[in-house]
Amino acid sequence: MRKRNPVDLSLYLVTDRRLATGFTLEELITRAIEGGVTVVQLREKECSSREFYELALRAKKILPPEIPLIINDRLDIALASGASGLHLGQSDLPVEVARKHLGPEAIIGLSVENLEQLKEAVNLPVDYLAISPIFPTPTKTDTGPAWGLDGLEQARRLTDLPLVAIGGINESNVVSVIKAGADGVAVVSAICAARDPEEAARRLRNIIEKARRNR
Amino acid sequence: MRKRNPVDLSLYLVTDRRLATGFTLEELITRAIEGGVTVVQLREKECSSREFYELALRAKKILPPEIPLIINDRLDIALASGASGLHLGQSDLPVEVARKHLGPEAIIGLSVENLEQLKEAVNLPVDYLAISPIFPTPTKTDTGPAWGLDGLEQARRLTDLPLVAIGGINESNVVSVIKAGADGVAVVSAICAARDPEEAARRLRNIIEKARRNR
Repeated sequence: MRKRNPVDLSLYLVTDRRLATGFTLEELITRAIEGGVTVVQLREKECSSREFYELALRAKKILPPEIPLIINDRLDIALASGASGLHLGQSDLPVEVARKHLGPEAIIGLSVENLEQLKEAVNLPVDYLAISPIFPTPTKTDTGPAWGLDGLEQARRLTDLPLVAIGGINESNVVSVIKAGADGVAVVSAICAARDPEEAARRLRNIIEKARRNR
Repeated sequence: MRKRNPVDLSLYLVTDRRLATGFTLEELITRAIEGGVTVVQLREKECSSREFYELALRAKKILPPEIPLIINDRLDIALASGASGLHLGQSDLPVEVARKHLGPEAIIGLSVENLEQLKEAVNLPVDYLAISPIFPTPTKTDTGPAWGLDGLEQARRLTDLPLVAIGGINESNVVSVIKAGADGVAVVSAICAARDPEEAARRLRNIIEKARRNR
């Protein structure tokens, strides 16, 4: 059986430059890491391949070695930038194809939007799954209905793959997500749109750690 | 010095599904090849990675071995589908990066929009250049000013790299483009939007062969 690549999913930042207020993406990432983010995923749907590549190179340069850089969707950008891994959605390249080209040591994550996709995913060469969306969210509009906390608990019972929940997570509901069995939470706007991304990350991380101790 | 991969640029089809009237992309490609197209490039800017990948697999299946399948922009789709090569624009991944991941035998082409880009390109590991746009064109709106026939002649004097001209080429001006020194012409709408793509390709190919003999 394939050895799974370990990844600390505790607080997983998915970037959205369009939401950042008054920060460059590099500033946003730097502050979010200071605040306790454990993974950074670059999700850029609206820029050229060259821009995405150069952004990935810059992000890689500012990330400390313990924080993996994950590229959304684009296997080519992940390969070209030497990122730590790739996050795939259901309409991206098949996981096996990405694994073949990235090799065994790259972190590969997959978003699953329902139980059927989750059951398929447990047999794929992935290192973690994203339960998406956990709550309804305005950030991403092309997803299926939300899993909810019950759905997350069900997912948790079905697999021992690390699970990160994404979609509509903020300070007010993060405890319930951790208690329902997520290994971590992924956020976009809760950090990207915050006036103080470092402080926003720090507060979320503290709540997550406390919820874990009380689980 | 790097050995250049040979490619017959005579009649180079760049696909645009949105222009096809009443044909699937597979039908369009099949007919265009019957008519004499020598290269097929898939250019898909508006679909998911999975769709582009599956389209490339289907295209590959219907192409005879002597017709190379070239993927526009997306190194990952070229890799994943096992296409013959990749066509890059100035805002796509750097040529050296693509060459590193595709290996020495992949066909790599690059669009150049002015003399400066052409002079840079002659030192890159490319197999051919696209002179883009040769004439003003409605198909692609993000390009620089047209090269014109004088510009093409100038480009021809500056490099022995195979040159394919693209942009606004049709039956009425193809002779002048071949006479100005192009090794071939790339067309989008002249074939994709034709009511009879096979006949459109055949007529263009005949004109090109005749223009070459009279050059």
